[in-house]
Amino acid sequence: MTGVIEAKLTELGVELPDAAAPAANYVPFHLSGNQLFVSGQLPLMAGGPDFKGTLGTDIDVDTAQQAARACAINILAQAKAALGDLDRIAQCLRLGGFVNSAPDFIDHPKVVNGASDFLVEALGDKGRHTRFAVGVASLPFGVAVEIDALFAVE
Amino acid sequence: MTGVIEAKLTELGVELPDAAAPAANYVPFHLSGNQLFVSGQLPLMAGGPDFKGTLGTDIDVDTAQQAARACAINILAQAKAALGDLDRIAQCLRLGGFVNSAPDFIDHPKVVNGASDFLVEALGDKGRHTRFAVGVASLPFGVAVEIDALFAVE
Amino acid sequence: MTGVIEAKLTELGVELPDAAAPAANYVPFHLSGNQLFVSGQLPLMAGGPDFKGTLGTDIDVDTAQQAARACAINILAQAKAALGDLDRIAQCLRLGGFVNSAPDFIDHPKVVNGASDFLVEALGDKGRHTRFAVGVASLPFGVAVEIDALFAVE
Repeated sequence: MTGVIEAKLTELGVELPDAAAPAANYVPFHLSGNQLFVSGQLPLMAGGPDFKGTLGTDIDVDTAQQAARACAINILAQAKAALGDLDRIAQCLRLGGFVNSAPDFIDHPKVVNGASDFLVEALGDKGRHTRFAVGVASLPFGVAVEIDALFAVE
Repeated sequence: MTGVIEAKLTELGVELPDAAAPAANYVPFHLSGNQLFVSGQLPLMAGGPDFKGTLGTDIDVDTAQQAARACAINILAQAKAALGDLDRIAQCLRLGGFVNSAPDFIDHPKVVNGASDFLVEALGDKGRHTRFAVGVASLPFGVAVEIDALFAVE
Repeated sequence: MTGVIEAKLTELGVELPDAAAPAANYVPFHLSGNQLFVSGQLPLMAGGPDFKGTLGTDIDVDTAQQAARACAINILAQAKAALGDLDRIAQCLRLGGFVNSAPDFIDHPKVVNGASDFLVEALGDKGRHTRFAVGVASLPFGVAVEIDALFAVE
């Protein structure tokens, strides 16, 4: 069966962007055996909002959840570029969630939920993953969230 | 052979807590092929001490080592929930150690040793892992340490 | 075929250092199935420069790129210790790049390029990896960069 997840994305009103080219001498994904590694994705999309800022300083949790969701959408865009068909995803195994945070910020889980909730909406149980959520001192281009991912594929 | 590691834990005076439920739309572990992924664990236990604080500011290395040990105990609690029997662990492959740190803190390895030493005490050579230890700006709920893990299982 | 990558390193003027012993109760690498996990490597080498500092505060991007390159050289030193022959590397799958950064630093990708570019120079297409690059609050011993790695091996 193919196209099921993409139909679900359409139902959610999500159009996958073109998979972003890496900004340097690395690759956006590797398929090795049945594991798909996706490079850390930023919440940047052509024509999209500017998800820059530091939690606890100048961006709020609601907005940062949208940033995390944008990272997850970019992760799926990379997965589609890697796999051709998102229905080849057997399981999202793991997300690494890096939140641009002030020292006194403590709600990193809520922020990364923006990505976690989206993946479960889009992939169902196959979207349920292990993860970590931590607060980093700064991120590339000043974005609020960076997330990398590992999938098991069929 | 079963129950060997749990007997060792009893000998060490360690009672595994109930595996903590995730605080959001993710899972605490995934078993995929022979790999067991465990979500980032916090040093929180019912009735346990409050391991909050920032290294270099308001928590010392000795206390943070106990926090790292508590993360490792929670990792084993998740592994037991995943595997039923901890003797199915073939090897702890990797720990990711995130230490809540001030910018001038430099002793992250000592802190994460609290987890590394415990895993070797509990699992013997099967507890020896690769790892990283880094200083993050902040962590969920203000805890001092967060650690995730990957195991090879039989 | 053996020795091809080491000949390339010689051509690049790179002599692999002795693989650094871990500073604590962990191991520098694990070979599990066809995956080689390498612990987070620091830019420290006997007789080498002192790559300490915080990006955006007291070390510049050019110097930190050299630090990232030194981390990658230490990663290959560990891979050689693990594999005997670097030609057994099938692919560098993933780098985790932690950059010691001030809150307003935004050029983490440029810093980690020091490692990425070196791995592609040394390993060719087998050196192209997925990665993340994030800014952490502090690192062990005050170094500017820490990088861990995962390889697929033959």
